[in-house]
Amino acid sequence: MNVNISGMSDLEEAIQKVREDVAALHGELVRYGLVVWTGGNVSGRVPGADLFVIKPSGVSYDDLAPENMILCDLDGNAIEGTPGSERSPSSDTAAHAYVYRHMPEVGGVVHTHSTYGVAWAARGEEIPCVITAMADEFGGPIPVGPFAIIGDDSIGRGIVETLRGHRSRGVLMQNHGPFTIGSSAKDAVKAAVMLEDVARTVHIAKQGGDLIPLPQEAIDALYDRYQNVYGQSSDDRRAEQS
Amino acid sequence: MNVNISGMSDLEEAIQKVREDVAALHGELVRYGLVVWTGGNVSGRVPGADLFVIKPSGVSYDDLAPENMILCDLDGNAIEGTPGSERSPSSDTAAHAYVYRHMPEVGGVVHTHSTYGVAWAARGEEIPCVITAMADEFGGPIPVGPFAIIGDDSIGRGIVETLRGHRSRGVLMQNHGPFTIGSSAKDAVKAAVMLEDVARTVHIAKQGGDLIPLPQEAIDALYDRYQNVYGQSSDDRRAEQS
Amino acid sequence: MNVNISGMSDLEEAIQKVREDVAALHGELVRYGLVVWTGGNVSGRVPGADLFVIKPSGVSYDDLAPENMILCDLDGNAIEGTPGSERSPSSDTAAHAYVYRHMPEVGGVVHTHSTYGVAWAARGEEIPCVITAMADEFGGPIPVGPFAIIGDDSIGRGIVETLRGHRSRGVLMQNHGPFTIGSSAKDAVKAAVMLEDVARTVHIAKQGGDLIPLPQEAIDALYDRYQNVYGQSSDDRRAEQS
Amino acid sequence: MNVNISGMSDLEEAIQKVREDVAALHGELVRYGLVVWTGGNVSGRVPGADLFVIKPSGVSYDDLAPENMILCDLDGNAIEGTPGSERSPSSDTAAHAYVYRHMPEVGGVVHTHSTYGVAWAARGEEIPCVITAMADEFGGPIPVGPFAIIGDDSIGRGIVETLRGHRSRGVLMQNHGPFTIGSSAKDAVKAAVMLEDVARTVHIAKQGGDLIPLPQEAIDALYDRYQNVYGQSSDDRRAEQS
Repeated sequence: MNVNISGMSDLEEAIQKVREDVAALHGELVRYGLVVWTGGNVSGRVPGADLFVIKPSGVSYDDLAPENMILCDLDGNAIEGTPGSERSPSSDTAAHAYVYRHMPEVGGVVHTHSTYGVAWAARGEEIPCVITAMADEFGGPIPVGPFAIIGDDSIGRGIVETLRGHRSRGVLMQNHGPFTIGSSAKDAVKAAVMLEDVARTVHIAKQGGDLIPLPQEAIDALYDRYQNVYGQSSDDRRAEQS
Repeated sequence: MNVNISGMSDLEEAIQKVREDVAALHGELVRYGLVVWTGGNVSGRVPGADLFVIKPSGVSYDDLAPENMILCDLDGNAIEGTPGSERSPSSDTAAHAYVYRHMPEVGGVVHTHSTYGVAWAARGEEIPCVITAMADEFGGPIPVGPFAIIGDDSIGRGIVETLRGHRSRGVLMQNHGPFTIGSSAKDAVKAAVMLEDVARTVHIAKQGGDLIPLPQEAIDALYDRYQNVYGQSSDDRRAEQS
Repeated sequence: MNVNISGMSDLEEAIQKVREDVAALHGELVRYGLVVWTGGNVSGRVPGADLFVIKPSGVSYDDLAPENMILCDLDGNAIEGTPGSERSPSSDTAAHAYVYRHMPEVGGVVHTHSTYGVAWAARGEEIPCVITAMADEFGGPIPVGPFAIIGDDSIGRGIVETLRGHRSRGVLMQNHGPFTIGSSAKDAVKAAVMLEDVARTVHIAKQGGDLIPLPQEAIDALYDRYQNVYGQSSDDRRAEQS
Repeated sequence: MNVNISGMSDLEEAIQKVREDVAALHGELVRYGLVVWTGGNVSGRVPGADLFVIKPSGVSYDDLAPENMILCDLDGNAIEGTPGSERSPSSDTAAHAYVYRHMPEVGGVVHTHSTYGVAWAARGEEIPCVITAMADEFGGPIPVGPFAIIGDDSIGRGIVETLRGHRSRGVLMQNHGPFTIGSSAKDAVKAAVMLEDVARTVHIAKQGGDLIPLPQEAIDALYDRYQNVYGQSSDDRRAEQS
């Protein structure tokens, strides 16, 4: 085991970093109005380990310190003896775990009941890609996933089956709400914020009359450019760029 | 009379605790945008006594200190000589008192004129249960109560007759607005926050087209699970969980 | 001239009090989202004098100190040599002045371009009284005033002709927006806040389907009770009550 | 080169002033809810030089200090060796640069994806001038510009061709969103704030039924008066007035 200057092993340091990120990122859900009361959850994979960090169940957004976050294995079980493990993890932990087991490229997962995302989900209607910001970020429509209720693997399986091979990092689980994925917890939070933003904008646009479709070749060009050209650095590019 | 370490009797201490809770919980109504100006009110029953604590009438949300809250008997009369009793209690006190007299299991009552809740109430239309978060929290539709105006027991009676035996902890009084109940003041505030959240989401969903109904067996399964399985502890479970 | 303990005459003290109130009340317009940039204005009559205090034209809501407010006579001219008089008063000063000259019972006037109020005004449609909070506060529908543009007395005259003898303290000037009056600047601000709240709520209610009318006798009973019975004190009762 | 009391040349001082303005003005985009995550950008021309200052690409609104802003020439290239130049400028820099090259009277440019502005843009529908505040500020409808995607001069050209000779300081680029111009960065930000405000208000008005058109002569009179008569001073009049 490598021990670094802080006296923590590399793994301990990686876990601590993810705890801090996940705790702080919950604040972004509040800032952007995506959650009420104790709803919603962010998780982040620990790089190089079969572990992820997630919010405890039913804790106020005012009390989300890094040491309250819960470290879980990829079956969604809290790792006994670690900080926070005396609490129950989020009731959506099984869905997050399923995604991490089946999509190794995913580093972060977010679930909210954000208003406009849920509204499209209650109609089982995908969000059409009619604005350039949506082409940049999602590369096409935001799809609907199957109706599934909590209690087995069906939510996680629905997320993975809908998003695998899809450009979109967000899915609207029918009658339930959005789940987003990303290369990191921050990238998944960005996807959740942008999903609600386009869900709101396209809803309002549609209330006013017919929408002008975006040509497929424009969608392709915008998506390709945004994913590959822009941004300040090569790491975690998408979460940082405008 | 038991006197505890703080020099207060158990009853005095219980009253003080409810005063602090009720005062602080008014801040949640502001945080979630459920109230404007001096509108809205939260009350909490004093455990083990025929008393409850409620907001004074017409006092700014900037001035809601525990000692300004008003202690009332179950007829809604301020207890003379107690802090705050020189003021009039909220004009909705009679309705709160009626609920406490007729529903002994209720520990908290909240009334707001929150935008979307009132909008459904102005049409006399119940909110259909089309999203899983609503099944979790309310176990079905949020019902409409009768039209009743302030001045006698008709509001309180309408609340009780609508909610008694109903899964929902919230009722939309026709042309008036939402009242919610809970095991504690905090639980009733959570219900008020969630009611407005689902009222907004289902309104917006419906503006966009037809809604997909939730199967009754899914509603039953979600409600049962949320009320009985999840949460960090057995006390005041529902107010805490996500 | 009476000189009081602070070394100010009674009139100077009254002016200073109105300056402080008017400056602080502009913050309520921001808090409730009724204004953007430098739009909107609050004025207050100086009790016992033919004077009122109003916001300067085009000053940021971050810079509204009492000494920046402008003291005007009832023709809307700044009183030379008084603090703030080197600036131009709000471009709506003539309309405020007209109201003070013709409605001696009015102690405060507010104008905003609040979103939902302006939306009804752009259709020239009065807001129907379908919720009890609106019956309490406005005693019936909120009426539409004539189309009039800035530059002569026509806005002020339109406000006065619409509101004189009307229960409503607010008018929607067609294609323009709301003006509200009150017994004090605070009471007029409360009316502006409540007007936007009911404009929003009734708009949303109407988008969802047919509204249930309130019986006229219920409107009368609610209005009478709210204006005459409730509240903590006899002074400025309406602005304080819930 | 003139060197002034601060030890900076006049040009250095002018650049520093624009850096400070542009950095601070991004905060107004956040305050008015016009942007999410790292989206949106403000730029300002350096008076008396072929230079402008713009936001870096993909930097959080929490990190926008003056020294992070990027100084560019009128082809949109960062000036090497100046503070911030190690970063990439906003991905919309080419469009801003095109505007500065072709509209010498323009001192500031703003781009956002504000919700209601984008909603009109997704339908390719101009915003009709039905409220007096819109006549004051924009002098008529807010026009739609052509569909154009990032990567060449087509966005900049579309902005210039639409706004040159038009009273409106804002254009809705089809399927994309608003760009606004002004005599300074602050004036362009005011235009962006007012554009979203009227986009929201007119959308909501139209959802409720038919709108009453404003007579053209009233629009002309309001626009003329607002641009020429009101305000506290002759400099940057429009950005300051109410």
